[in-house]
Amino acid sequence: MEKNILLTIAYDGSGFSGWQKQPGVLTVQGCIEEALSRLCGEKIQINGTSRTDAGVHARGQRASFKTDLKLPIERLPMVINNMMASGEKSSFQISPVRITAAEEKPSGFHARFDAVGKKYIYRIRDGGNYDVFRRNYFYQIRDALNIEAMKEAAFFLKGTGDFKSFEASGGTPRKTTVRTIYGLEIKSREDKKGRTVEIHIKGDGFLYNMVRIIAGTLVEAGRGDIAPGHVKSVMEARDRRAAGHTAPPWGLCLEEVYYSEEQLK
Amino acid sequence: MEKNILLTIAYDGSGFSGWQKQPGVLTVQGCIEEALSRLCGEKIQINGTSRTDAGVHARGQRASFKTDLKLPIERLPMVINNMMASGEKSSFQISPVRITAAEEKPSGFHARFDAVGKKYIYRIRDGGNYDVFRRNYFYQIRDALNIEAMKEAAFFLKGTGDFKSFEASGGTPRKTTVRTIYGLEIKSREDKKGRTVEIHIKGDGFLYNMVRIIAGTLVEAGRGDIAPGHVKSVMEARDRRAAGHTAPPWGLCLEEVYYSEEQLK
Repeated sequence: MEKNILLTIAYDGSGFSGWQKQPGVLTVQGCIEEALSRLCGEKIQINGTSRTDAGVHARGQRASFKTDLKLPIERLPMVINNMMASGEKSSFQISPVRITAAEEKPSGFHARFDAVGKKYIYRIRDGGNYDVFRRNYFYQIRDALNIEAMKEAAFFLKGTGDFKSFEASGGTPRKTTVRTIYGLEIKSREDKKGRTVEIHIKGDGFLYNMVRIIAGTLVEAGRGDIAPGHVKSVMEARDRRAAGHTAPPWGLCLEEVYYSEEQLK
Repeated sequence: MEKNILLTIAYDGSGFSGWQKQPGVLTVQGCIEEALSRLCGEKIQINGTSRTDAGVHARGQRASFKTDLKLPIERLPMVINNMMASGEKSSFQISPVRITAAEEKPSGFHARFDAVGKKYIYRIRDGGNYDVFRRNYFYQIRDALNIEAMKEAAFFLKGTGDFKSFEASGGTPRKTTVRTIYGLEIKSREDKKGRTVEIHIKGDGFLYNMVRIIAGTLVEAGRGDIAPGHVKSVMEARDRRAAGHTAPPWGLCLEEVYYSEEQLK
């Protein structure tokens, strides 16, 4: 009896050419499919919810696939993770990709088509306290950001609107550029080495590079390069050139995928 | 007038084949020498204090070199760091190697020969809460460690002793295997995702792989594979086979190098 399985996946995207399988390069999808195909003894293809770019991370990516495999589903994550890990017991190193959960779904379920929304966090370290150990996980910038200005600017991005100004060219064509942002919060915390600024964003869908362009635009508001209120006219322009720069991929992490409206709102 | 310059260096060792320059592979020394030679317009060779292995990190590595360069010394770190960084202003990514300080020293000073001691931290995550974002920076182990047992075992390693049992073969030959450990502390702290256990070790010198073999042995005491008191007989054996496994490189970080007895003790 064929099962439809939904995986939850965490990965450090630093060393990968993104999620989507491409010949000759290391991709997250390729890495998981290779292990699953070996385990199942047949060619497995997985459908990921989000085709994250090179260098982008995930704590809560989802992907579904179908298999006849008899292995009890609760054992699947451990088996696959061990197949992807390297080294011996005494110097065991986990893989940069990790299956954190697996559950069975009805046969019609699809990880991407059934998703109703997603949450991303974009992570920044400001004030020029550059840290080599954070280089792949934070957008590190010299200036100290004005958090209040970033919050004011973010206000104009909440709710339902046309995000055409925040869409990069080169992505999958979309029927509409209208999206709903259910949550957009700027959080900051100091530690002894500097300050972390996080942009938490939750929406029903995101255009190509939309979160990174929002992050870049909010950074420009935080720097004082643009007035917070200017973001209102950026929305109205429906033109990529009106928005700020595309913040680099390594600050971005897909945190959660939602399959019910209650979780999203 | 030739200046003798001492650098303080931080690096994420994950992508490097260690500190020491070798043809055809990426090394920390090679990376710094390449930038310094370009800047100075002459071939620069640096003397590092510690030849850290592939995958080992540093927050406080030191290296010295001589140059006629006229650049004010306080500007040197910024200039070299900019030369090693990648990307444009809008998506600036710092290099995995970073000069954090530069100071002028008397002409006879040597970064390695004048060092009187070093501090390392070996970082562990226990209890099987594997985290992809920590894979290159922590020794992640399944078992929950007994911290008290690790502290008891560490007691037998403090002070002056013959550490021959904790020396791997393959390193530079040494006149003596006697070393003094001035500090050896086990620290642990919980966070919402699990527990970090750190081994802080400060000594006048370390044999080849000594910190990693000490870490592996203390992990075995923490797991209950050996009794804490067994470490006393490991010291007495003067035989590598008596000690525990060599903990993997990615948990290790060179934190500080000392040039005065006061700092060390």
